[in-house]
Amino acid sequence: MLVVGERINSTRKLIRPAVEARDIEAITNEATIQVSAGATYLDCNAATVGVDKEPEFLAWLVETVQSVTDKVPCALDSPNAKAIEAALAVHDSTNGVPMINSISAETEKFGAILPLVRDSGAKVVALVMDDTGIPKTAEARITIGRKLVGDLVKGGVNAENIYVDPLVFPIGAEADAGKTVLETIATLKAEFEHIHFVCGLSNVSYGLPNRKLLNQAFMVLTMGAGLDAVIVDPTDAKLMSLVYASEALLGHDEFCATYIQMARAEKLE
Amino acid sequence: MLVVGERINSTRKLIRPAVEARDIEAITNEATIQVSAGATYLDCNAATVGVDKEPEFLAWLVETVQSVTDKVPCALDSPNAKAIEAALAVHDSTNGVPMINSISAETEKFGAILPLVRDSGAKVVALVMDDTGIPKTAEARITIGRKLVGDLVKGGVNAENIYVDPLVFPIGAEADAGKTVLETIATLKAEFEHIHFVCGLSNVSYGLPNRKLLNQAFMVLTMGAGLDAVIVDPTDAKLMSLVYASEALLGHDEFCATYIQMARAEKLE
Repeated sequence: MLVVGERINSTRKLIRPAVEARDIEAITNEATIQVSAGATYLDCNAATVGVDKEPEFLAWLVETVQSVTDKVPCALDSPNAKAIEAALAVHDSTNGVPMINSISAETEKFGAILPLVRDSGAKVVALVMDDTGIPKTAEARITIGRKLVGDLVKGGVNAENIYVDPLVFPIGAEADAGKTVLETIATLKAEFEHIHFVCGLSNVSYGLPNRKLLNQAFMVLTMGAGLDAVIVDPTDAKLMSLVYASEALLGHDEFCATYIQMARAEKLE
Repeated sequence: MLVVGERINSTRKLIRPAVEARDIEAITNEATIQVSAGATYLDCNAATVGVDKEPEFLAWLVETVQSVTDKVPCALDSPNAKAIEAALAVHDSTNGVPMINSISAETEKFGAILPLVRDSGAKVVALVMDDTGIPKTAEARITIGRKLVGDLVKGGVNAENIYVDPLVFPIGAEADAGKTVLETIATLKAEFEHIHFVCGLSNVSYGLPNRKLLNQAFMVLTMGAGLDAVIVDPTDAKLMSLVYASEALLGHDEFCATYIQMARAEKLE
């Protein structure tokens, strides 16, 4: 399981000023707490500084984050090809290739991001949306996902680097939002042996009480359907504990070695 | 989701003396705490008193339990047809038919239990084992499950009353034990529209640290595969919270009404 720590995101109230002021201490602190909590990738988002300044700021974020985390790889979170290009140029891939977050089947976005993915050998988050928007039904998302995977592979991207994101919506607004995600993952997983699946969880619980609980249960449900990467706040220790437990239960943790190691380190709750 | 409280079981060290001494207070206490924790069925097991005395003791257990729980229905947990018959005779089905726990594809057991299931209209736990024992692979369990469901329906049992139990083994001993259960449920669910699935969870974590955590994650994974009844200790509040959250996420809780009600009652953690 690839755990992408989501906290270094300029759209978050507490992070925005730190990014805009290039506050090294605040950013490195967010990086180290996430890695020590179990993150294996760190999302970096500098979108709020504006399109023109984003390339410089996103590159600075990546360098700052990698300077204190023994070169943990980053997810480059931007719709801006120039910002991704600048961040790719400074990313140290000693401990893993970067993840480009994201591409989609939108014509313009696909055309702008594909060369960066292909030429860098990065992993890529592939959102199941196209020029008509985000479809409601699992069937329509599966159709887009199928086309997107096909086009990426045709465009020279290794299938192993593709992380399809089924797009998570609040169940409080749409009762089937959870089922749609699970069905999209399970169906595409059965069709494409080598691709991966990623999502951000927290949207699912929007507007409902005890959001952490819903996020925890959805984490386990999506893992059961085939999710093998997730964008989350890893400082939720119960969530991370459920990730380790689910890995063991799904037979992905040989001899339950990681699970037992986490138990010994008293990291499980 | 049907939650069968597992605590009133004479094979448990603390319960055995209470059953054998017909300790009304101890038994009614176990019954009320489980119902108030969310159990919708109560398992009753008096096996340790011996085959001859079991009918009388199991019937006493059922009457005792139902006297303080506003007639919550019981799961009659015995391999002994005479004990089940005696318990069926006193069971008050005002709030739900009893659940016979269990039948299997073992020739003798099947022949002894089938008439009781058919004639009483009870629900029945159907274990995927036969005269050769419990097979290791999902494929072999699915084959037995398929035959068992067919034979039960042919024998006059309503498919809606069948709860297939895929049989849970410790992942610490067998890495695939979790996957085997998930695959058995998902495959049989796709084949038989009307049947249900039940299991006891706690075996899965035997021999590993932080057992409650593994049981919680497995609860959610099995619900994702299609489990709609479970035999558990409902006094684990986190486990029950994950059940309510998963029901909402799977679209089984209209408008998230039960989830929100549980949140308001401060029953979620």
